[in-house]
Amino acid sequence: MDVAKQRVMQLRASGGTSWRADELTAEEPLEIRVDSVPLSVTMRTPGHDLELAAGFLITEGLVTGAGEIVSMRTCPQAGAVAGPLNVVEVTLQPSASRPRSARHFYVTSSCGICGKASIDQVRTICSHPVREDPLRVSPELLLSFPERLRQAQPGFARTGGLHAAGLFDGDGGLVCVREDVGRHNAFDKVIGWAATRGLLPLRSHIILASGRASFELTQKALMAGIPLLAAVSAPSDLAVALARESGMTLVGFLRGDRMNVYSGHHRLAISPG
Amino acid sequence: MDVAKQRVMQLRASGGTSWRADELTAEEPLEIRVDSVPLSVTMRTPGHDLELAAGFLITEGLVTGAGEIVSMRTCPQAGAVAGPLNVVEVTLQPSASRPRSARHFYVTSSCGICGKASIDQVRTICSHPVREDPLRVSPELLLSFPERLRQAQPGFARTGGLHAAGLFDGDGGLVCVREDVGRHNAFDKVIGWAATRGLLPLRSHIILASGRASFELTQKALMAGIPLLAAVSAPSDLAVALARESGMTLVGFLRGDRMNVYSGHHRLAISPG
Repeated sequence: MDVAKQRVMQLRASGGTSWRADELTAEEPLEIRVDSVPLSVTMRTPGHDLELAAGFLITEGLVTGAGEIVSMRTCPQAGAVAGPLNVVEVTLQPSASRPRSARHFYVTSSCGICGKASIDQVRTICSHPVREDPLRVSPELLLSFPERLRQAQPGFARTGGLHAAGLFDGDGGLVCVREDVGRHNAFDKVIGWAATRGLLPLRSHIILASGRASFELTQKALMAGIPLLAAVSAPSDLAVALARESGMTLVGFLRGDRMNVYSGHHRLAISPG
Repeated sequence: MDVAKQRVMQLRASGGTSWRADELTAEEPLEIRVDSVPLSVTMRTPGHDLELAAGFLITEGLVTGAGEIVSMRTCPQAGAVAGPLNVVEVTLQPSASRPRSARHFYVTSSCGICGKASIDQVRTICSHPVREDPLRVSPELLLSFPERLRQAQPGFARTGGLHAAGLFDGDGGLVCVREDVGRHNAFDKVIGWAATRGLLPLRSHIILASGRASFELTQKALMAGIPLLAAVSAPSDLAVALARESGMTLVGFLRGDRMNVYSGHHRLAISPG
């Protein structure tokens, strides 16, 4: 985990001051290029950059899977003799659909710019339906996930400034954790980790977000075939609508001894009585 | 504030379940078009969309100020007879620099894709230097801001799912609050509110973020000429570097009875003794 140390002044209401070493989350731009053409720039925490690129291409629907990716490499900007490794150059199979730009699918929708059109587009590009996924999980097990994710977040403990995504299997095994200044990047890194190991679709898996559940995170989970998205904080209405339309289980406010279940209740194995 | 009501199942560790009405944050895509050309799509909480568009164009450096904007209107997608108002059409002065795409300045930098280049580019496009701004604020006053922002956040109280930005004047007056699913949108709405009233640059003002301070939020505050950015949570290293290079005061972990001051300490009027 990339953490920068700084001297920082701590100031109290009383007017008392002290200086101490503070650890800061690292943030740097990353450019993703496909066949030498710049596709996107994201502000991310350096590390796991190839996973981030693979996950981004898949969860945004720009490739159908890691099989369309021939090679990926990190490099300094072309022409520079040295510099930070803030470019990922991706080479695709000749047969792969060529991406135009990220999120291009919103503006090509025939029924207008709206949440419903966004949902329809995700359904169109999504190649791993989750509706029939047989996952069942007990509330007790799910409620143990946030604390287990926190314990696996070295960066957050040190800086307080990182979002995290945790991937769990159906038995509750924590299989991958990634931290990043951007929660969408944390999701892409986890999904890219799985994709580059041939693990997609992530059937009967659970992905946990350390914060809120937006439409974007719900889309990314769906694109990886994950049937259950849980978030420590609130979902948006569009995230709930997308989960319901897709047959995905969406859990929010997963903290303490309770949770809200917004869709796909049947996957929570509730004991009778 | 756009809030959707849903029936949601609350589930406890004990297995007990109950159904209750839950209020969800609204999230919808917004397309910004400049002279009929699509520029960007952002997922935002509907409301204050013209302010969002104006703030976005200014804080991303695509126009130098509201004076370059001839008109803005919200409309359904062209060709649709009805639909949600999820498009803002902006008409610019003929003399205005035509935007190519948001964040294009990263990829045109001559010294590579890196944090330093990002900082250099902000300096190049920033028309309101903050270094000489005479703002002084007492720690006691600054420490009162988070609670005052929370009290002015009706959406968060109801949904738990909204970021907020609050703009304060140098005497501690709260002049504008905006909430959004995206923290960058909340900043753009506050700054767009000020821009469309002819209030830029926001000399001797303070902007408070309800969460973390990223490079992007620091850039947006700088582009509006705001000399002090305070955040309830952690900043990133690049946010701190940009603030230091620009002579801006950056405060993080502003909560309880203390704060961390990362740059521009001289603006915190600390009583001697």
